[in-house]
Amino acid sequence: MSRSMVLLTWGNSNPRAAKTATGLLRFCADECVAVLDPEHAGKSAADVLQVGEGIPIVGSLQDVSKADTLVIGIALPGGQIPPAWRPVLLEAIERGMDILSGMHEFLSDDPELSAAAQQHDVKITDVRKNDFRQIAQRPPLNPDCLRLHTVGHDCSVGKMLVSLAVARGLQQRQLDAHFVATGQTGIMISGSGLPIDCVVSDFVNGAAEQLVVDNQHHDILVIEGQGSLVHPAYSAVTLGLLHGCQPQGLIFVFEAGRQTAVGLDHVRLPDLAQQTTLFESMASLYQPCQTVAIAMNGRHLDSQAAAEAARKVESELELPVVDVVRDGPQRLLDAVQDFHRSGSWRG
Amino acid sequence: MSRSMVLLTWGNSNPRAAKTATGLLRFCADECVAVLDPEHAGKSAADVLQVGEGIPIVGSLQDVSKADTLVIGIALPGGQIPPAWRPVLLEAIERGMDILSGMHEFLSDDPELSAAAQQHDVKITDVRKNDFRQIAQRPPLNPDCLRLHTVGHDCSVGKMLVSLAVARGLQQRQLDAHFVATGQTGIMISGSGLPIDCVVSDFVNGAAEQLVVDNQHHDILVIEGQGSLVHPAYSAVTLGLLHGCQPQGLIFVFEAGRQTAVGLDHVRLPDLAQQTTLFESMASLYQPCQTVAIAMNGRHLDSQAAAEAARKVESELELPVVDVVRDGPQRLLDAVQDFHRSGSWRG
Repeated sequence: MSRSMVLLTWGNSNPRAAKTATGLLRFCADECVAVLDPEHAGKSAADVLQVGEGIPIVGSLQDVSKADTLVIGIALPGGQIPPAWRPVLLEAIERGMDILSGMHEFLSDDPELSAAAQQHDVKITDVRKNDFRQIAQRPPLNPDCLRLHTVGHDCSVGKMLVSLAVARGLQQRQLDAHFVATGQTGIMISGSGLPIDCVVSDFVNGAAEQLVVDNQHHDILVIEGQGSLVHPAYSAVTLGLLHGCQPQGLIFVFEAGRQTAVGLDHVRLPDLAQQTTLFESMASLYQPCQTVAIAMNGRHLDSQAAAEAARKVESELELPVVDVVRDGPQRLLDAVQDFHRSGSWRG
Repeated sequence: MSRSMVLLTWGNSNPRAAKTATGLLRFCADECVAVLDPEHAGKSAADVLQVGEGIPIVGSLQDVSKADTLVIGIALPGGQIPPAWRPVLLEAIERGMDILSGMHEFLSDDPELSAAAQQHDVKITDVRKNDFRQIAQRPPLNPDCLRLHTVGHDCSVGKMLVSLAVARGLQQRQLDAHFVATGQTGIMISGSGLPIDCVVSDFVNGAAEQLVVDNQHHDILVIEGQGSLVHPAYSAVTLGLLHGCQPQGLIFVFEAGRQTAVGLDHVRLPDLAQQTTLFESMASLYQPCQTVAIAMNGRHLDSQAAAEAARKVESELELPVVDVVRDGPQRLLDAVQDFHRSGSWRG
C-alpha cells in the first residue's frame, strides 16, 4: 500500500494527544503530505508536534494539492467526533479521499459519513473495529521464537515508538524481527495487527495470543505494549495483552519526570523498581520472563538532565537505559541481541 | 419483576456448565418453573444440577403448563447458539415467552429470532449487550462505604454464590449491604449490574468504577468477582474489575482439589498463598486492601475431606475458611462484620 495522507489534528495539535499523527510522521514520513489544523496553519509539523520536518500544517484541504487519505491523527479519550470536524470529513469524502480512523466511535457507522462515502466511492476504515471472539487457549508456541514485549509505567510514554525502533533496528542488523501492532497507530503504520483495547474484554487475552500464533514463524517478535498494569483506567488491557502474548523478555519504557498517570493528575505512579518487579512477576506466572532493557523517553529534559536521569535509573535497576529518540536505539539493540543470542529465554 | 422461568440447559446439564441455571435455581427458586433438557427429562433439577429440589426437568415446552420466560441456562465458551436450540427458541417465542440470554452471541441480533419476537410481541433480552464507553476517572469515593470484592483462584469456583450469600446474610443481620452484579447470571438474579466481561476492554475499569459510584450510598457493597488474575484467558477482566471497584476488603474463593485452570487442563494454577498475595498487592496499589476471609467450594469432597481441606488452608493462610454451601455463611458473615466494625478499612 502506498498512500498520500493528510493528518487531521485540529483541536489537539500537541505531541501527547496527536499520537497517531506523530507515529505516522515518524515512521511513514514518505506517505505524509500535510497536517490539517487551522489553528497552526503555515507552520511546519515539527514546530508543533516535534516531528515531521518539512511537512506543512495547512488550514484547509484546499491547500493540499494531492492526497488520497485523510487520517484522524489524534486519540480522543472516550472517542467522540468533535462537531467542528464533520464538515472537514465530508469535504475530504467529496474530494475522493479515503478516511482512516482509530477512534472508538466508528466513523463507518455514522449515517451521514457512510452515505457520503458510498456516494463518492471512497472507503472509511475504522482501525479499531473488530469482531474478535476467541478465548485464549495457551497452545504450545514455537520455542525458537523470542517474544519481546514493550511495557511501561504509564500510557503514552513511547512503547510503540520503541517497538518499531527495535524491530526496524534488528532488521537492519539482518535479524528476522517483526513488529506486532496492538493499537490503532501501530496498525496504520504496519498494515496489520489487532486493536487490543477495542476487543471485548473476555477475548483480550485471546486476541494477543492470536497475534503471536499468526507471527511466530519469525525469529523475534516485538509486540507493542498498551497502557500499564498500574494505570487505574487501562490495566485490564495491559494484563490481557501481557498474558496473551506470553513474552520471554520485556523492554520497559518510561518518561523521565512523569510522576502521575496520564489523564489522572491525582494518581501518583508507583516507582520504577516496583513496576518492573510487578510486570516481571505477572509475566512469569507460567514461564520465565525478564526485563531486558529500559527505554527512557526524555522529551521533557535537556540533554544533560536526560543523561543524568538515565544514569540514575541504570544504577537503580541495573539494566541499560536508552533514550531512543535522542541517542538512537543502538545500545537497546545490543541488549536485545545479547539476550537473543544467550538463549536463556528458551526457559 | 416477578417471572416464571424455564431454564434451558440442553446439552450441558452439569453444575459447572449450567452456571446460570444453578444460580437462578439457588437464588430465585420461586421463579423457576422447570429445567428444559430432553436428555434428562423426568428427573428433578437437583438430580443433575445439585440444586433445585422439586423443580422438574422437562423434555419439551409442551410439558410446562405456565411460564413467561425462557432463560439460556448455560455458559458456552465462545457463545454460539447450538443448532438444536433454534427450534426450541422459536417455539418459546411462538408460545409468547420472553427470552433471557447471557450469551456473547446476541439472540436479539439474530434475524430469524428477532423477527419472530416482533411477530409474537415478546422481548429478547441479551444481558451481556452493552454500549458502555466511559474511561475510569478514579473520583473520590464515599469513605463510609465498605467495598468488598469476591476474587478467586480460577473461574467457576463460586464467587457469585458467595457474594449473594454474604450480601443476603448481612441484610438478614440488619446491615445495609448490597450485592453488585458484574456477570450475566448475577444481573439476571438481581435485576441490575454491568456485564464486565462483555465491555470493550478500554472501558472495563470504568464500568466497574461506575457500579461503585452508582451504589455507594449503601454501607457495604459486595461486588461479584470474575475470572482470576492468574487465568490465562480471563485475567484482563479480573484486573479491570479489581482496579475499577477499588475494594478495601477481599473475600478469596477457591475450589478444594482444583489444580488446573478451567478449560485449560495443561495450565497448573499457582498455589493459594501466592494468589492471595498477588490479589492483595494488585488491589493495594493506591489504597490499602486486605483479604478478610476465605470461602471454600467443597463440592467435590465428602464432609470429612472438606473439613480437613478447610483446616489446612485456614492454618496456612491464617484466615477463616468457610464452606458456604455445606456449613452456611455464618462464620464468613462474622468475619466480614468484624472487619466492617473495626473501621480499619477506612485507611
